[in-house]
Amino acid sequence: MEATTFVLFGATGDLAKRKIYPALYNLFVDQKLPQSFSVIGLGRRELSDETFQANVEQSLRMFSRREANDPAILKNFLQAFRYSVLDVGRKEDYQKLLQLIEQREEELRLSPNRMFYLSVGPEFFETIAANIQESGLGSANGWKRLVIEKPFGHDLQSARDLNQKLSKAFAEHEIFRIDHYLGKPMVQKLEVLQQSNPVLQALWTNRYIANVQITANETVGVEERAGYYDHVGAVRDMFQNHMLQLLMMLAIHLPNNSTSENVRLNKKMVMESLEPLQKEDVISHIVRGQYGAGTIQGKPVVGYTSEPSIAETSRNDTFIAAKLRIDDYFWRGVPFYIRTGKRMNEKSTRIVIEFKEPFKQSSWANDDSKMPNLLVFEISPNEGITLQLNTRDPQHRGEFKPIQIDFHASGDDVPEAYENLIHDALHGDPTFFAHWDEVELSWKWVQPILEAFEENLVPLHLYAAGTYGPAESDALLAKDGYHWWFDAKPEQEIKNKKGELYAYHPNN
Amino acid sequence: MEATTFVLFGATGDLAKRKIYPALYNLFVDQKLPQSFSVIGLGRRELSDETFQANVEQSLRMFSRREANDPAILKNFLQAFRYSVLDVGRKEDYQKLLQLIEQREEELRLSPNRMFYLSVGPEFFETIAANIQESGLGSANGWKRLVIEKPFGHDLQSARDLNQKLSKAFAEHEIFRIDHYLGKPMVQKLEVLQQSNPVLQALWTNRYIANVQITANETVGVEERAGYYDHVGAVRDMFQNHMLQLLMMLAIHLPNNSTSENVRLNKKMVMESLEPLQKEDVISHIVRGQYGAGTIQGKPVVGYTSEPSIAETSRNDTFIAAKLRIDDYFWRGVPFYIRTGKRMNEKSTRIVIEFKEPFKQSSWANDDSKMPNLLVFEISPNEGITLQLNTRDPQHRGEFKPIQIDFHASGDDVPEAYENLIHDALHGDPTFFAHWDEVELSWKWVQPILEAFEENLVPLHLYAAGTYGPAESDALLAKDGYHWWFDAKPEQEIKNKKGELYAYHPNN
Repeated sequence: MEATTFVLFGATGDLAKRKIYPALYNLFVDQKLPQSFSVIGLGRRELSDETFQANVEQSLRMFSRREANDPAILKNFLQAFRYSVLDVGRKEDYQKLLQLIEQREEELRLSPNRMFYLSVGPEFFETIAANIQESGLGSANGWKRLVIEKPFGHDLQSARDLNQKLSKAFAEHEIFRIDHYLGKPMVQKLEVLQQSNPVLQALWTNRYIANVQITANETVGVEERAGYYDHVGAVRDMFQNHMLQLLMMLAIHLPNNSTSENVRLNKKMVMESLEPLQKEDVISHIVRGQYGAGTIQGKPVVGYTSEPSIAETSRNDTFIAAKLRIDDYFWRGVPFYIRTGKRMNEKSTRIVIEFKEPFKQSSWANDDSKMPNLLVFEISPNEGITLQLNTRDPQHRGEFKPIQIDFHASGDDVPEAYENLIHDALHGDPTFFAHWDEVELSWKWVQPILEAFEENLVPLHLYAAGTYGPAESDALLAKDGYHWWFDAKPEQEIKNKKGELYAYHPNN
Repeated sequence: MEATTFVLFGATGDLAKRKIYPALYNLFVDQKLPQSFSVIGLGRRELSDETFQANVEQSLRMFSRREANDPAILKNFLQAFRYSVLDVGRKEDYQKLLQLIEQREEELRLSPNRMFYLSVGPEFFETIAANIQESGLGSANGWKRLVIEKPFGHDLQSARDLNQKLSKAFAEHEIFRIDHYLGKPMVQKLEVLQQSNPVLQALWTNRYIANVQITANETVGVEERAGYYDHVGAVRDMFQNHMLQLLMMLAIHLPNNSTSENVRLNKKMVMESLEPLQKEDVISHIVRGQYGAGTIQGKPVVGYTSEPSIAETSRNDTFIAAKLRIDDYFWRGVPFYIRTGKRMNEKSTRIVIEFKEPFKQSSWANDDSKMPNLLVFEISPNEGITLQLNTRDPQHRGEFKPIQIDFHASGDDVPEAYENLIHDALHGDPTFFAHWDEVELSWKWVQPILEAFEENLVPLHLYAAGTYGPAESDALLAKDGYHWWFDAKPEQEIKNKKGELYAYHPNN
């Protein structure tokens, strides 16, 4: 791997402490960082290098998946870290930064490859990119890369504006837009599972698949992000980026020797095949929800509009359920149901593929103890794959019962999303980053929803905290004869057609 | 369930003690026996009812999967047992038996339904059946059934003779031929798994399946059955019955609302579609083996011809491997490899389905870290289902690694084969018994092998005890570009094309 300088804007921030430093440390322990590397932390506060290194060390002790207790390894790791004060608008600070980078490159004999990681608010993206450009921080003798975090725009127009401004300083191939869902190990497996497994390839079509359900439920409320979240809502915070990325990763059909370029191209094709939503159709395809008071894991919690910093009159969405269709050769006729919400009954991100029953007209259709075949990808908090099949109890030959064939990752030593993503960015591998095409097409698809919400063309359904969202979410599937799988609501346990209860719960 | 008298010939024998009494007891505890039932044990020895009941009780303590320690349940169970002396050739004994049956039917107010279970040597089948017929033990006012154990004949002609004789006393629908492999829970699941799971239905064809491997390996040698076994060999003892039944159960394609009649019909169709073997083709399709001295689980063991009661010159087969083809719409072009042997490396009965790689011409074919998709049914000693898929380690994106998606039965409370089979026979359900058509077609298919062995047209390959049979067994698959999966020989571990070792072993 090429020698690199990792320049971190927002080095004293929360994301840096919780995710970026632990990720760098674990890559270091796994010998997945360049032999020689330099980290420059930037922030508004004055810090000595020693204090900065001590702060980094403390963040490792608190947040690293591996214990950071070997003094020799720690010392080797931390000695790569330097700190520089930077006010994003002050041009002199970029000159000081350039001097520090060059000084370290000389000390460590590094090629002038520089990765700029913007762990700062989106309002600073433009200024920082312009100043990197202006100050000559990108060297002619090495590569430069820009890593940015969401949000990438607030709607279609603002995203286009932002991209236009960034692209003055960085070419598309130099920009790595992090969607941390794309860094999750099971999401990365989705690509490979289809393309390299004939068993799944054979099944991955509307011939066998009845519907696809993508869920990302959280139990938390708005927490300390209230002020920000109230201007964003579930559509912008989760749906436009993470949920549509999951849809793309599930729906792509890749050629066999696919490159990262194939992945991007095919994700774009999925987005282009997504049936566009007109503003007047939002009401029949989208369920907009907001949590009221309720109970989470036995503890009472307040409703959204009673949260600190949220206006009592807020009509912000904390839940969205959507029905989408991909009009291509593989997926025509297969509804994709997507939902995501805060203050839900349980924390779980998963994809459920429900298979068709083979012969709807036959007497099987009347065998009420039979369950459909399901393939479940559990993405978080644990990762796993489950295939549900029917068997019959030999002792009760007439009765079907489902068995689960499943795989669960050991959980011990699974790299975190940020490790995978930082590693890929250091390698210049864009496979698991959001390309501008995807971002733009996602905003384009979502835009009518934003407008319909804005214009209040769609009712806002309250749901009690600790449930699975408003009843309208269930009705969205019920219209098509389906239901959300594995919701643990008492009134909606997993039942066969005879109304008998089954014990299945994905491990999470 | 109808009231029944269970008449057991061979009531003091080993099978009765180890399997039949424990099975009856566990059915009793599970309330799967008729409310009223009567058991009459028969044997040559004089025994009082009390001693007989005490012997039954002792067999439960030794062999039942459930502890038999509740005095009330035990008493209720044992009070159904009576004993009568019977010499199979002495007609008076059958009259005494009839009197006892009728007396018990009167005492217990049972309908005259009588199930005759012949847990005796095959040399007695004919005599017993004729005497049952002659003595009027079958009542005009109830049903009669005959349950017999293997062997059913010694070759095609003797099987036909035996069947002709039995059929004078019992109609085909009254004869329940036990093949205890058909009683194993996972074998019974095979039928249901295919017909009620669209996911498997979609895959169950020569379009996706490369080959099927059926293995039944034992670690034991001939033990106390030496004298019998030396006249039988692996072909008659295992292949003609158990192995071909496994083949049928795997290869059948059932209509959706299948009855036991459909199962029988479709099993027959599989046997009729099996490409017949000419005597001169045996050498290219069959591997004949006999174990030599070797090591089983660290302990040295003698070779077959050094076993007590085996002649030093014996050329009996203790191992057979076979390649078969089913020439029907579903299986044309898919080789079925079957093997079974004594003194093998490990005890395991399993079916492995190897799937084709989807695009042989593409660059995938060169990706040497990729493994084929496998679907594994583990039948014994443990039962389970495993699906092997390829993923890629997110940390090493170019490298594939297989993951196993699997199901394992709890093992605690799984009914034994004999429980399932006795239960079905009491119900009159013939699904999991060997029909005469199957038996006849199996002997017919096997007959050229028997003759080729007899005439020594085929070499007898020695293999060391504790291995996976002779090298010729591996060569049989290697000719077609395949190998036996999951053999744990050091020189033949599971490797990908790059020669890297994988850690997979089915749990057994």
